[in-house]
Amino acid sequence: MDSIPQALQQLIGAFSRLPGIGRKTATRLAFHILKADRTEAEQLARALMRVKTEIRQCSICFNITESDPCAICRDPNRDRSMICVVEDAQNILLIERTNEYRGLYHVLGGVISPLDGVGPEDLHIKELLERLQGVKEVILALNPSTEGEATAIYLARLIKPMGIKITRLARGVPLGSSLEFVDELTLGKALQSRSEL
Amino acid sequence: MDSIPQALQQLIGAFSRLPGIGRKTATRLAFHILKADRTEAEQLARALMRVKTEIRQCSICFNITESDPCAICRDPNRDRSMICVVEDAQNILLIERTNEYRGLYHVLGGVISPLDGVGPEDLHIKELLERLQGVKEVILALNPSTEGEATAIYLARLIKPMGIKITRLARGVPLGSSLEFVDELTLGKALQSRSEL
Repeated sequence: MDSIPQALQQLIGAFSRLPGIGRKTATRLAFHILKADRTEAEQLARALMRVKTEIRQCSICFNITESDPCAICRDPNRDRSMICVVEDAQNILLIERTNEYRGLYHVLGGVISPLDGVGPEDLHIKELLERLQGVKEVILALNPSTEGEATAIYLARLIKPMGIKITRLARGVPLGSSLEFVDELTLGKALQSRSEL
Repeated sequence: MDSIPQALQQLIGAFSRLPGIGRKTATRLAFHILKADRTEAEQLARALMRVKTEIRQCSICFNITESDPCAICRDPNRDRSMICVVEDAQNILLIERTNEYRGLYHVLGGVISPLDGVGPEDLHIKELLERLQGVKEVILALNPSTEGEATAIYLARLIKPMGIKITRLARGVPLGSSLEFVDELTLGKALQSRSEL
């Protein structure tokens, strides 16, 4: 399309490489930037570069952080007898937002998935085992996928013999949902784990 | 949320200021950038700045361009007896993609909308009238909104007395759609303008 300025084509291309952003949305975003205040484009450009230069991994829990160790690992008010194991750092955010957990975290960096060529040695499992001194409970907050379940079982086998309690997130009907939108497997689990009122 | 690095919070904020990007999508995009190759973030940052520094308006048709006049106004193969009037430069892209039009364009920069305080003097109408020497047809490709229709009528009143043919886009059922998704007004117009097979 020679009728689009090259700079705009580049921006559309860069936007459409983002996940979930198709060509149409990318075009809309690029035109928004074109019309927007110059500072808006500058802020986004600067934030992009800052993220790539200033953020690294916590050497203890592999959370993302600007200073090592991360804010959670440094926080003296956190309960150091509990470690919540997650697949990636993004899941820490989700759990933090619930305000229900005051322990520490450990980011695995994925799940065991032989089909994708990911074995236990590719994850931060060794580092997790090295952190378990004094820990009383390990919560496995992995995704409820086949790989997540398999990884949970693998970890439980390693950690249980150390005399540490292993728990995982409850399965059940999501709050605020309607039963008709809940899949059979989840509904089955919710029935099995029903609780008395 | 003090558990998110500040740089990441900034990027989430910058993404969520884009139109149609909510907090959740912005978070997903920011984490994508965090994990992505450094060059991907750099390309997006550079494209953002390039768009703001290198793109301006064509002094003839008000299309966006890197060199004035724009590629379409400069193209000797374009039919100079036709001008297609659009609301903004983005619409030129849409029409160019159809490969159905080989004339020139004119970007109004909006539509007449008294409620938003936009009068005819706020649009590039004067510049359009000054370009009509030798023009045989003006196609009004404005959005089929109330304001678009009103602006089309306003322009038609100005241009028709100059002996120039005025046309507008056909109204009807969109191709590949299903009748049940077409609103009544459109269906009504499609019935009125039905063509013989």
